[in-house]
Amino acid sequence: MRNGSISLKEIIKGIKPADEEWIEKAKERTSQLLMPTRALGRLHDISEKICGICKTLKPSISRKAFLVMAGDHGVVEEGVSAYPQEVTGEMIKTFLNGGAGINVLAGLVNAEVFVVDMGIIPDLDHVSLNGEDHLYIQKVARGTANLSRGPAMTREEAIKSILTGFQLATNLFSKGIDMLGTGDMGIGNTTPSAAIGTVFTETALEEMVGRGTGVDDQGLLKKQKAIQKGIDVNRPDIKDGLDVLSKIGGFEIGGIAGCILSGAYHGRPVVIDGFISTAGALVAHSLCPFVTDYLFAGHCSEETGHRSMLRFLDLEPVLDLGMRLGEGSGGALAMGIIEGAIKIFTDMLTFDQAGVSNKS
Amino acid sequence: MRNGSISLKEIIKGIKPADEEWIEKAKERTSQLLMPTRALGRLHDISEKICGICKTLKPSISRKAFLVMAGDHGVVEEGVSAYPQEVTGEMIKTFLNGGAGINVLAGLVNAEVFVVDMGIIPDLDHVSLNGEDHLYIQKVARGTANLSRGPAMTREEAIKSILTGFQLATNLFSKGIDMLGTGDMGIGNTTPSAAIGTVFTETALEEMVGRGTGVDDQGLLKKQKAIQKGIDVNRPDIKDGLDVLSKIGGFEIGGIAGCILSGAYHGRPVVIDGFISTAGALVAHSLCPFVTDYLFAGHCSEETGHRSMLRFLDLEPVLDLGMRLGEGSGGALAMGIIEGAIKIFTDMLTFDQAGVSNKS
Repeated sequence: MRNGSISLKEIIKGIKPADEEWIEKAKERTSQLLMPTRALGRLHDISEKICGICKTLKPSISRKAFLVMAGDHGVVEEGVSAYPQEVTGEMIKTFLNGGAGINVLAGLVNAEVFVVDMGIIPDLDHVSLNGEDHLYIQKVARGTANLSRGPAMTREEAIKSILTGFQLATNLFSKGIDMLGTGDMGIGNTTPSAAIGTVFTETALEEMVGRGTGVDDQGLLKKQKAIQKGIDVNRPDIKDGLDVLSKIGGFEIGGIAGCILSGAYHGRPVVIDGFISTAGALVAHSLCPFVTDYLFAGHCSEETGHRSMLRFLDLEPVLDLGMRLGEGSGGALAMGIIEGAIKIFTDMLTFDQAGVSNKS
Repeated sequence: MRNGSISLKEIIKGIKPADEEWIEKAKERTSQLLMPTRALGRLHDISEKICGICKTLKPSISRKAFLVMAGDHGVVEEGVSAYPQEVTGEMIKTFLNGGAGINVLAGLVNAEVFVVDMGIIPDLDHVSLNGEDHLYIQKVARGTANLSRGPAMTREEAIKSILTGFQLATNLFSKGIDMLGTGDMGIGNTTPSAAIGTVFTETALEEMVGRGTGVDDQGLLKKQKAIQKGIDVNRPDIKDGLDVLSKIGGFEIGGIAGCILSGAYHGRPVVIDGFISTAGALVAHSLCPFVTDYLFAGHCSEETGHRSMLRFLDLEPVLDLGMRLGEGSGGALAMGIIEGAIKIFTDMLTFDQAGVSNKS
């Protein structure tokens, strides 16, 4: 898995649909398990999808990790967030010290948390955590430009953000990570995400734009206005994912798209979190529609518009608990369910093994 | 927690609503946690409910267990199930040998599995598992009578089934179990459960009765007919939970009701599973409506009518994954989410602790 100098074009060319044959073999095994036909519902769909991704009937996701992608956003000067921009950097420190939501929930499923500075404004010390380096500094730039006045970044920066995510995810997979979760941190990042969601899914702005971390009515109007201006000024071309990402996206969103492409390229499952991760998935999907074969939607966010995004990608969320924190938190909780699905597939006895009578 | 000779009347009298004051204190703590206001949605409701149940801001559910209640049903002679009656006993052996769905999923959340013979037809050997006794033989009788022709059991047997469940759950709580899950096994038991659901929730029979383990159209009609006959013949009084349980219930359903009463009596959270466990909850609720303060609905079953039951009890399911296996499987998966909710509540830093700027 050394892809140090691979181009985006080569990555896209290298992604194939998941293996239908392995999915069929997995369905056959499910039908022999000690229960009424497919009595565990979605758990079977999940385990069979993983068999198709990993091309095995003995999948394991014992080694899990999160890449929490962080970036700052020029558009915050339009008053689109309830929190000051410094919070992006402050939260990264907390991720590294282990006290944030993603640390707690990733800990519960034994997933490691790595943080990536994809382009935040301040400089952070290279902090060592538990004897290992859990922070990657990969600044594409110090925050994006204000998307409501012009492109958020250049096309080259968009490519760089995707390739950075691809490379970091690839490194984790090559170190033996079985399943990757994507997370995000970036004050203001529901604004580019909603912009991306609006253009790709062609959903009305009012339905797509939510309150993010909790803006009031006035903040919501400012946000809608900033996004509308950004779309009008930039005219992103939805047939060109790089164009959309560069004009109305963010560095962490590009990084997430890269992680997703890496999972699909290397045949590893990736669990996306909520609104921002799904914006990354929309970008990846526009570059290569096969990526959804390798994706799990951890949950449906409370953020308005997330459901439309997931529907567009034809992804059914595992959880629906009114969450809207980001960081990867919904993906981490979902990994517990996915692990349950796999254990059922691998560890449950068959009717034959148990010596139990089947349907008469 | 020695309640060896406590009467049902004393149990009901001893159950109080959960503590509103502790719930308020818990909400106050949630508001200080490092995230936008209540950004983890339902997770906060869950952790605060547990604080109200356990009267603490430091709840723990490190020790968890399942009581899987098993019983046989006379009504199977009406052709209401897709599986032969022997499967009840065969499955109990599998639970004790560790290869069934509940074993796999309970193992994932470190919950022990205990099986109770509440009234199955065959005799089972007292099987020792992992050096400890995981089977309780508490036969109320060898299967219920056919509810479509008369009462399923006597009123005394109904009381005995509830008190047995109460006592077994109480023993587990007194041994330090923090959270109890209820499970069920019994070929034919969606039939009494649907009967109970129909009468308590006053839902149309066609909406309440599902295919259980998978009867065909003809089997479904037989099931509806058996239930309608059972209601017509027995005329259960919905103001009297014991009357309903004895006339159209089952021994495992009574046992589950007893577990639920025990949790409420001792101030311990109980996680119910799907259709059969919720029938038990309906019985317990009719005896003492406060029990729902202590209950978590693990999931919404695919079985028709379960949603109506949960709505009647005003319980929001944690998961909704199209499952319909029973055994406690949905409760076990949900325990992972509940554990996440508690860890967030106890382990996440506050804004002050993390030194992160709060809303401006």
